Amino acid sequence: MLSGVGVSPGRAAGPVVIVAQPAGEPPAGPPPTDPAAEAGLVAPAANRVAAGLNARAQAASGEAKQLLETTAMMAADPTLVTQAEQLVTTKQLPAARAVYEAAAGFADALRAAGGYMAERVRDIEDVRDRVVADLLGVSAPGVPDLSEPSVLVAQDLAPADTAGLDPAKVLALVTEEGGPTSHTAILARALGIPAVVAVRGVLAARPAQLVVDGSTGAIEVPAEPITPFAAEAVVTEDWNGTGATSDGLRVKVLANVGSAKDARAAVEAGAEGVGLFRTEFSYLDATDEPSVADQQAAYAAVLAPFHGKPIIVRTLDAGADKPLAFLAPDPEPNPALGVRGIRVSRERVDVLDRQLAAIVGAAAETGAEVSVMAPMVATVEEATWFADRAHAAGVERAGVMIEVPAAALVADEIFGAVEFVSIGTNDLAQYTLAADRQLGAVAALNDPWQPALLRLIGMIGKAGLAAGKPVGVCGEAAADPNLAGVLVGLGITSLSMNAGAIRKVGAALAKHTEDTYRQVARAALVSHKASDARATVHAMLS
Amino acid sequence: MLSGVGVSPGRAAGPVVIVAQPAGEPPAGPPPTDPAAEAGLVAPAANRVAAGLNARAQAASGEAKQLLETTAMMAADPTLVTQAEQLVTTKQLPAARAVYEAAAGFADALRAAGGYMAERVRDIEDVRDRVVADLLGVSAPGVPDLSEPSVLVAQDLAPADTAGLDPAKVLALVTEEGGPTSHTAILARALGIPAVVAVRGVLAARPAQLVVDGSTGAIEVPAEPITPFAAEAVVTEDWNGTGATSDGLRVKVLANVGSAKDARAAVEAGAEGVGLFRTEFSYLDATDEPSVADQQAAYAAVLAPFHGKPIIVRTLDAGADKPLAFLAPDPEPNPALGVRGIRVSRERVDVLDRQLAAIVGAAAETGAEVSVMAPMVATVEEATWFADRAHAAGVERAGVMIEVPAAALVADEIFGAVEFVSIGTNDLAQYTLAADRQLGAVAALNDPWQPALLRLIGMIGKAGLAAGKPVGVCGEAAADPNLAGVLVGLGITSLSMNAGAIRKVGAALAKHTEDTYRQVARAALVSHKASDARATVHAMLS
Repeated sequence: MLSGVGVSPGRAAGPVVIVAQPAGEPPAGPPPTDPAAEAGLVAPAANRVAAGLNARAQAASGEAKQLLETTAMMAADPTLVTQAEQLVTTKQLPAARAVYEAAAGFADALRAAGGYMAERVRDIEDVRDRVVADLLGVSAPGVPDLSEPSVLVAQDLAPADTAGLDPAKVLALVTEEGGPTSHTAILARALGIPAVVAVRGVLAARPAQLVVDGSTGAIEVPAEPITPFAAEAVVTEDWNGTGATSDGLRVKVLANVGSAKDARAAVEAGAEGVGLFRTEFSYLDATDEPSVADQQAAYAAVLAPFHGKPIIVRTLDAGADKPLAFLAPDPEPNPALGVRGIRVSRERVDVLDRQLAAIVGAAAETGAEVSVMAPMVATVEEATWFADRAHAAGVERAGVMIEVPAAALVADEIFGAVEFVSIGTNDLAQYTLAADRQLGAVAALNDPWQPALLRLIGMIGKAGLAAGKPVGVCGEAAADPNLAGVLVGLGITSLSMNAGAIRKVGAALAKHTEDTYRQVARAALVSHKASDARATVHAMLS
Repeated sequence: MLSGVGVSPGRAAGPVVIVAQPAGEPPAGPPPTDPAAEAGLVAPAANRVAAGLNARAQAASGEAKQLLETTAMMAADPTLVTQAEQLVTTKQLPAARAVYEAAAGFADALRAAGGYMAERVRDIEDVRDRVVADLLGVSAPGVPDLSEPSVLVAQDLAPADTAGLDPAKVLALVTEEGGPTSHTAILARALGIPAVVAVRGVLAARPAQLVVDGSTGAIEVPAEPITPFAAEAVVTEDWNGTGATSDGLRVKVLANVGSAKDARAAVEAGAEGVGLFRTEFSYLDATDEPSVADQQAAYAAVLAPFHGKPIIVRTLDAGADKPLAFLAPDPEPNPALGVRGIRVSRERVDVLDRQLAAIVGAAAETGAEVSVMAPMVATVEEATWFADRAHAAGVERAGVMIEVPAAALVADEIFGAVEFVSIGTNDLAQYTLAADRQLGAVAALNDPWQPALLRLIGMIGKAGLAAGKPVGVCGEAAADPNLAGVLVGLGITSLSMNAGAIRKVGAALAKHTEDTYRQVARAALVSHKASDARATVHAMLS
């Protein structure tokens, strides 16, 4: 019996296909006899890899398509090719080795930048391994062609691998590394494939077959051959589009969006509004701060589909882990504990004020019911400062995200300063458990079912009820139907998630009464372990 | 009116002396006419700097002496000299520039290692600036000779600067950067000089005189010339050596130690025992894990002075932020949120078991009343696992440190598994506020007076009282006499601190009743800000 962290729900079983690891570091010699000719091999190889990825992107759609295109772009990046060519001529390296070393330089720089940039390291390594394989004439690393429906087991999966998967052939995903917010996890959820990550020892166990439970994280190696089965498709048609418990307690089912495309997808999926609009996506490619008019236009494009509906805009969540060119953060030893979110706004009040003006302008332009909240608030003083600033800019409803444990602990007083709060469970879990959400090795700790985290959420729910003000959740936790029930039982009044989860969560919510959700919440709070909480609630709601 | 974080108590005022910044980056040219001769300049300059620091170390004592010796050792390090010499000959650089670049390589490596290692960056930069100044024939950076008692204002102070300070000439320290656990703060407390760190804008304000309140963090620029005054010396003779409130509630006053020398100093200072013995100091220089016999001998040397007295040994607190050669941690994007403390022990149970055997052996050998606790525990499951392992090894009293918010939130259940807990306020503050304790820019958030942190500590105190089990505090918070009173009011049953603070805290505790401490605790819990809590309690206890 192995176990890990269930990150995409459902139960499936079948034969195991191990995803081959890349060949590794190519030898540094012998030196090429004709360095110029050897250098000339790099660009065509990179172009072939880019073309192959683009071809796969053509055949894919949605997130998968976008990921394959991004990876193809990295493969075609002339900087990598030029650096590798130079290494061939200046250091007399074979082309494959030169590509390997050039990529290492890139990866180091990304890793040093930390956070958001560091998450791209796996992508550049994937490109490297594909170009190296092409140059060495061996088959590309990654998922082989599957002859029958299988359970894929890997160290970790590169975005380009998971993006090309055929859900009909993949019964489940199991990885030795990775966490709940890894690409593997996010894509598995998007594709509806059960997935369990951070399963220490699964590769060494070399199982022939596996039974995978993506809801509980349990992985069973059957003693005798079994008949493969796929996860049941989730029935989503039975939601009437208004989030509520079976006895009528209203719980809005909202979407997390980061672009106009996301906003359209959210409306199509039946979202009642937006619980989290991540505005930093509008800045990411900008070398200078966009003008107020440009920001307003970008926001209006996202708000437009929500005329007359509620939408919560989060102000800029930048910092050393999500660097923006025009804010140029200093490097920090622990970017997750550094100058992020509202801490940046306190230093650059001018940037915040321009953003607030653009948001208020876009709200007037589109007729969406806009609220505005600040990220990474830790103290009552910060909440008061932000609310004052937002109100002065013409924002009617100002709120804060609660994703720092300190803010949860003084939630009663924060409600005195703001009109609403929204809990970011991903970061709140990371800080409460002191377990990096990017780090596979601590993924079992960083689990939204941790009783300690649920107790903290319960305190916020109680404070919200006492103040008569709304408390939303906009982390990954809201997308888990059972956990959504626990959250409702803890006093959460709205749930915000990726568009793909909306109908599933809306339908699940309508199955039980408010009282049942209070009971499952109590059971989760007194569980000794995250896995106990998950299993107990699963049993109670099944 | 400026303000910052008060890190060493007391009020003082006087003329300002700005600590000069180092000259900066020396030019990369012109290339030396005789590179071999130029390279030959490096070693003598480094040796002169090392000799100068050693001479200052001779005149100093205690921590100051140790710091100056460490910095001298870094200056004399042949690796730095050799690398600089090579840069002169291979890159045709002037000697000063070569030293600058060689040091940059060192600093980058330390910075990339993060955490504990990254804290050494300031030291290597200090050595660099001194050697560069010597080579350029300019005066060394740092504190000039003071003609009259003055308030020193600096960007940040290098350990070597603060170590050479004459307390009679320095009225107070004010820095633009730094945090409560920076070298500046720790040394100022050791020397009894008021200090305020993280005072944004103090250098730009170019004050002629300052009134500094190291208790509240307030910095006043007097409108008219004032008469300088020094902080009142704290009266410490009036402690009878038994920690208790004025009405007899027993609160043990214990010491934090990391070596046999510390242990002797703690006994001399009147410590009733040891609340935190940091064992990782016994491993830091080891390339291989020390044998059980060697570990036992090292521990016995620390335990010996405490025959018949209580001493709490903390098991190995290693991780990517405190790397040990023989455990070789992987680099992590946020080492503070990575595989640290008990998380390392879960992966290397063999190392833990050998350490437990050595501790039990040393306890039997010395007759000290030894308890053992694990660092970085986050869940009930981890606490149970550790207590079982420790009991099986023959440990009578097993406990855990509470320094992760999750552990505080499930403290009631953790008490079911262990005999005691000890709160590490430095890390608990860092995670609760999501504010890196190493980062000056977030020092105002990472404040032990934050009401949110005190609420969390209060929950642990309540759980300990309900379980009838001891709750210690072993972070910097315990060394602040007023905050120590708040902690007692929150249910803390022992306080552990650096030897220098013991008599001061012991004497302060005896001044008020348990009921008064409960009242100040209540006042602190409902304060809106850390600075309000600090000021209110200060006023109530004065």
